[in-house]
Amino acid sequence: MISVNNFKYSIPTTIYFGKGQICHLGKAVAQYGRHALLVYGGGSIKRNGIYDAVLEQLRGEQVAVTELSGVEPNPKISSVRQGAQLCKENGVDVILAVGGGSAIDCAKVVAAGACYSGDAWDLVTNPGKIGKVLPVITVLTMAATGSEMDSFAVISNPDTSEKLGTGCEGMTPKVSILDPEYTYSVPKKQTAAGTADIMSHIFENYFTNVKTAFVQARFSESLLKTCIKYGKIAVESPHNYEARANLMWASSLAINGLLSDGAEVAWSVHAMEHELSAFYDITHGVGLAILTPNWMKYVLNDSTVGKFVEYGVNVWGIDSGADPFTIANGAIEHTRNYFNSLGLPSTLKEVGIGEEHLAVMAKNAATHGLENSFFPLNADDVLAIYKSSLK
Amino acid sequence: MISVNNFKYSIPTTIYFGKGQICHLGKAVAQYGRHALLVYGGGSIKRNGIYDAVLEQLRGEQVAVTELSGVEPNPKISSVRQGAQLCKENGVDVILAVGGGSAIDCAKVVAAGACYSGDAWDLVTNPGKIGKVLPVITVLTMAATGSEMDSFAVISNPDTSEKLGTGCEGMTPKVSILDPEYTYSVPKKQTAAGTADIMSHIFENYFTNVKTAFVQARFSESLLKTCIKYGKIAVESPHNYEARANLMWASSLAINGLLSDGAEVAWSVHAMEHELSAFYDITHGVGLAILTPNWMKYVLNDSTVGKFVEYGVNVWGIDSGADPFTIANGAIEHTRNYFNSLGLPSTLKEVGIGEEHLAVMAKNAATHGLENSFFPLNADDVLAIYKSSLK
Repeated sequence: MISVNNFKYSIPTTIYFGKGQICHLGKAVAQYGRHALLVYGGGSIKRNGIYDAVLEQLRGEQVAVTELSGVEPNPKISSVRQGAQLCKENGVDVILAVGGGSAIDCAKVVAAGACYSGDAWDLVTNPGKIGKVLPVITVLTMAATGSEMDSFAVISNPDTSEKLGTGCEGMTPKVSILDPEYTYSVPKKQTAAGTADIMSHIFENYFTNVKTAFVQARFSESLLKTCIKYGKIAVESPHNYEARANLMWASSLAINGLLSDGAEVAWSVHAMEHELSAFYDITHGVGLAILTPNWMKYVLNDSTVGKFVEYGVNVWGIDSGADPFTIANGAIEHTRNYFNSLGLPSTLKEVGIGEEHLAVMAKNAATHGLENSFFPLNADDVLAIYKSSLK
Repeated sequence: MISVNNFKYSIPTTIYFGKGQICHLGKAVAQYGRHALLVYGGGSIKRNGIYDAVLEQLRGEQVAVTELSGVEPNPKISSVRQGAQLCKENGVDVILAVGGGSAIDCAKVVAAGACYSGDAWDLVTNPGKIGKVLPVITVLTMAATGSEMDSFAVISNPDTSEKLGTGCEGMTPKVSILDPEYTYSVPKKQTAAGTADIMSHIFENYFTNVKTAFVQARFSESLLKTCIKYGKIAVESPHNYEARANLMWASSLAINGLLSDGAEVAWSVHAMEHELSAFYDITHGVGLAILTPNWMKYVLNDSTVGKFVEYGVNVWGIDSGADPFTIANGAIEHTRNYFNSLGLPSTLKEVGIGEEHLAVMAKNAATHGLENSFFPLNADDVLAIYKSSLK
């Protein structure tokens, strides 16, 4: 039996959590630099006042600002290159991301790219090339990726249809401002997709073969219950503070090491989904919601059923006295129904994905360590899961 | 209704967790200083080889060592004074505690005292006087206080019969080595008391009036379940790695801010227990195990019963369909029985405490913010709880 793995736990990000916590931003940025690159996406932060609040904070500390706006969902390497260039040209010494995971992921790789003489795409394909990294600070406006408290970033390259993860300790944000009210304006569809993304991070950590990491497993169940309870409320009542607050905090804790340290396992569904959004640019959380129940069905067997029973009993409250496969299938059904209840699709067909690229996507996905996941998968397995997700 | 409180989350301690992690100690200490004060208690670390392993690590990095040994359980201000003096005389620039909460708590206040010109007791009675603090590093040998990952310390002054908490961000250990095998030699009685201490930290955070901090409440239940499962196993099978590992990690997470941030409440039972161990020098965890069920019985009423139902259903698996007071009383009974099953006493009489000082202890305890706890308590309330704990 595998025992609790050795681990190094280090979560150096300082979080200011709650209403009005933007008041700490100016001093936090000024502590790390005098010239900030402000990284954000579309114009939503200008409409909801966050942009103005951020600038006021920076002005208050006489921090100079250069802007990188228009960072897209599934952030592209072109934005990273542009940001790195701006840093070099303007003497930027601190990166401030304002937005969701896309802005933050882009900012992290910009922070590394600003200190790198070659092409920033090198830092995505080969994290070993990351050297110095400018300090990153974030103001979160969407609960989903957990990028505000971890060391990872995912960047897309449309030229090569690649969507790859990279990261290093230095990319972990120094300070993140988490104001649940800043997520009030996130549309229902994005709130639903964000909830699916958080849940998928938890599932990826929870479905591990390190059976004795009890603390980590119970924490995973705690966060799953949080998502299940509050995802629904946030979709239905976007201004419910309690729901937005619990979802926001769950998103950060799901992926910052707390659930995975000591229980490490290679992730499965993320690698499969990254191919979908690399080829079709669909919303990451939507892809995860479609694939997850089908992945669960595919990997359920005599040796994995115990973990699914744990999930069904502890998260969904299914009677532990029932037959193990009944519990397991019930839990999978609950999962699918829950995603549907948030308004998320359950087939690839619904998001316009057909059979055409499945084989090549399966082959790509299988190269991302899936042989070391909870249930080892090869390209044929992935293809079967894709196909079972078609309609 | 109180909503999730605003909070600042900052847990900067790096943890090396697992078998053989002492290998990281030398470099960790050398990163912070060249001359360490080695703080420890009795001779147990010499008998079990930990002392030698620590010195080998320090020698490997040419770190000079001055020793402060003989730190007692419920560490006394006299040890702190001695340590601060040693630091000043020898140019110590980093403090290394090897032991349980007593050695670590002592080390933290020594670290502050080394940079303070007055009497170190000032820093206990008035944490505002703490200025610079030498970096603290710890090697944990007992799972209980959580001091290895938090900013607090509790110091006793036999001259005044005071046992007081102090703390500041700078006292938080920079690095802590948590090797579950280092706790194999902890005697059954101390393992039991340590488990009660961890559980009490969780209870103190869990019984809050911030009802909407859902993540924090579920995490508390996760750690309670961890203690209940593994405390018993560790007492019965001291060399069970899984049990020692889960208890050790639970002890750190119980009190490092993860459970309390956003759900803050003044603690109750700790203030009451500190009087017991200040007057009678009993083991802290033993005092907590005696008082906790009696405190629960005392504060159970129509307005608190909901929290006890949550506890009974989610932690002890009591049927949620039962009458609320039946569930609540069942949960309290489970708690007392569990402590008894670890071999812990359930009355003050068993530890030699009679009525003689109860009134003055109650009066002292009530000065520690108990009016802001889950169920506000005054000196009369505390006296009633003490009396109900007598036999």
